[in-house]
Amino acid sequence: MKKTVLIMAGGRGERFWPRSRNNLPKQFLPIVDEHKTMLQMTVERVLPIVDIEDIFVVTNREYSKYVFEQLPDIPKENVLCEPIGRNTAPCIGLGAAHIRKKYGDAVMIVLPADHMIKHRSIFLNTLSEAAKVAEEGENLVTIGIAPDYPETGYGYIKYMPGKTEGLAYAVECFVEKPDLETAKRYLYEGLYLWNSGMFIWKASTILGCIQSFLPDIYEGLEQISAAVGTPEQDEVLKTVFTGFRSVSVDYGIMEKASDIYVISGAFGWDDIGSWLAIERMKQTNEFGNVLSGKTAAVNTKNCIIEGKDKLIACIGLEDLVVVDSDDALLICKKDSTGDIKKLLELLRIGNQTQYL
Amino acid sequence: MKKTVLIMAGGRGERFWPRSRNNLPKQFLPIVDEHKTMLQMTVERVLPIVDIEDIFVVTNREYSKYVFEQLPDIPKENVLCEPIGRNTAPCIGLGAAHIRKKYGDAVMIVLPADHMIKHRSIFLNTLSEAAKVAEEGENLVTIGIAPDYPETGYGYIKYMPGKTEGLAYAVECFVEKPDLETAKRYLYEGLYLWNSGMFIWKASTILGCIQSFLPDIYEGLEQISAAVGTPEQDEVLKTVFTGFRSVSVDYGIMEKASDIYVISGAFGWDDIGSWLAIERMKQTNEFGNVLSGKTAAVNTKNCIIEGKDKLIACIGLEDLVVVDSDDALLICKKDSTGDIKKLLELLRIGNQTQYL
Repeated sequence: MKKTVLIMAGGRGERFWPRSRNNLPKQFLPIVDEHKTMLQMTVERVLPIVDIEDIFVVTNREYSKYVFEQLPDIPKENVLCEPIGRNTAPCIGLGAAHIRKKYGDAVMIVLPADHMIKHRSIFLNTLSEAAKVAEEGENLVTIGIAPDYPETGYGYIKYMPGKTEGLAYAVECFVEKPDLETAKRYLYEGLYLWNSGMFIWKASTILGCIQSFLPDIYEGLEQISAAVGTPEQDEVLKTVFTGFRSVSVDYGIMEKASDIYVISGAFGWDDIGSWLAIERMKQTNEFGNVLSGKTAAVNTKNCIIEGKDKLIACIGLEDLVVVDSDDALLICKKDSTGDIKKLLELLRIGNQTQYL
Repeated sequence: MKKTVLIMAGGRGERFWPRSRNNLPKQFLPIVDEHKTMLQMTVERVLPIVDIEDIFVVTNREYSKYVFEQLPDIPKENVLCEPIGRNTAPCIGLGAAHIRKKYGDAVMIVLPADHMIKHRSIFLNTLSEAAKVAEEGENLVTIGIAPDYPETGYGYIKYMPGKTEGLAYAVECFVEKPDLETAKRYLYEGLYLWNSGMFIWKASTILGCIQSFLPDIYEGLEQISAAVGTPEQDEVLKTVFTGFRSVSVDYGIMEKASDIYVISGAFGWDDIGSWLAIERMKQTNEFGNVLSGKTAAVNTKNCIIEGKDKLIACIGLEDLVVVDSDDALLICKKDSTGDIKKLLELLRIGNQTQYL
């Protein structure tokens, strides 16, 4: 069966402020690589197993120009624009409806646009194995990551070691982000994997699940799909999609469906969830600093400094993240990167939306 | 006797990097006030007791343009340009020689260009009292500041409570910057004042002292003075002054001379020795922060943020100094501001002199 890739590229990337902005979020920026954006890296990574014509990108109207610029070889009609963000279930449903319309049916590999993968061939082998499991029956397959520390920022997937399908384990349940004690127990028990947000299934399978568990959304997708290629296409998409409720595929489908499988991926995964990821991706110097751009440092250790045109001079600093951009500079204690949202809220309230 | 003021304005102001630069040091910048430079404030402060025509400024050729711009009412010939910095003794000697040439003799009030004074009228009364003591005889008068904490960054003046002249005490000795234990003892004993670097004497008195204790420099000053008004003026100044050794008036004169007096000044003095002074000069907010320019702060306390055009966003910070400028930004732990010199050395070694 044909294999397609659906890349979700509609996020706002607030955690990478001030580089990432509402009008230019992180997936369209060269955050990890000097030259390639995260979206470009995501596409390049899968090209050995899927044709460029079979890659779909879901984004929104404002960001679609970046997709066209950065991925000039992708067919225009493969770039799907959400009129508004409604979380992952409507996003994936929209992609599935387009894929069904174009190919009848196909395997869909659903990937976020902003993850990093260290070992590409292991990653691709994992996807191929997952595609096999997805193709044989009505299986929903996810990629889980074996945890190496008790992370409290991810959801977990509990698998059943006794029940397998190819390289995949059957999933017992999905669990929300745990507290530290629970996360430690998960790590100890060895039956839990991080939920990476990557999914593999047939378009027909996921649409069937949407029909069962989110029938209102299924109905809307049918209307949108029927209008594709007609003069009303844009108008129908806008009206119907905007009417969708916001619901994640995890909550709306995965926690309710049966025949869910997980493959443990051991390919060096990072969801680049905050500036702290820079430290894991790039080389630190002898003082534990990751320096880029123009910098000068005295007595400074374990800092992440992302300079730009301006010289960033650091004296006596420890455990800070410093990120420069054209009009705003962030200085943030490492353990406070989660508070970037609070800062953006402050700017919103203060009517300083030019910085968002 | 005529009263004159000699302002020393040749310093490089490294401790206020990156605002203060080799080609535009702090005395020519509005560091404390929003509109007036420190030099302008120094001049304005003394105008009630001295005519503008009787104010002299010693600086160097590179900086003289700032003096002319910022003090348009000062006679051009009162701006004296050192061809090279040779510490305070040659600087003050040069001023004294000019004052003697212009007026025969006069009282000289020698002031650094970059100090802050809170209570102006007390300051001026103190200077007037000092001038009286200087005028009566061959006295060298300094202004001392009663210490209110054991500062280790200043020299101290020990006075003799039993021997006075007007409001001044006779000086027993000058002592170098003490260690913390010694500074605490000084504070406890109550006979020590901070050496503020302000001096009051007659031109004839200080020139007499230079003749006695620094005869080589006196000889050079005579040559320079003789050439004033001749076509060789600039050439002689350059050759002779460059030949001077570097020597401070404290070490070269004050530690050797007799008839030295000190008046304790209680006028709210600050030598604006580092960025930390900003905190003493400006209002701190409820979190102990001093914010200027465009800033946004979350969970940030006791920081000094001097923004400029760019938004400076701070999250989870404590005890930092952040100073933006057009091409460089400083982030410095408060207890490390002394290491700015190390940073500038690093830039010098790295051939990044454009930032100095």
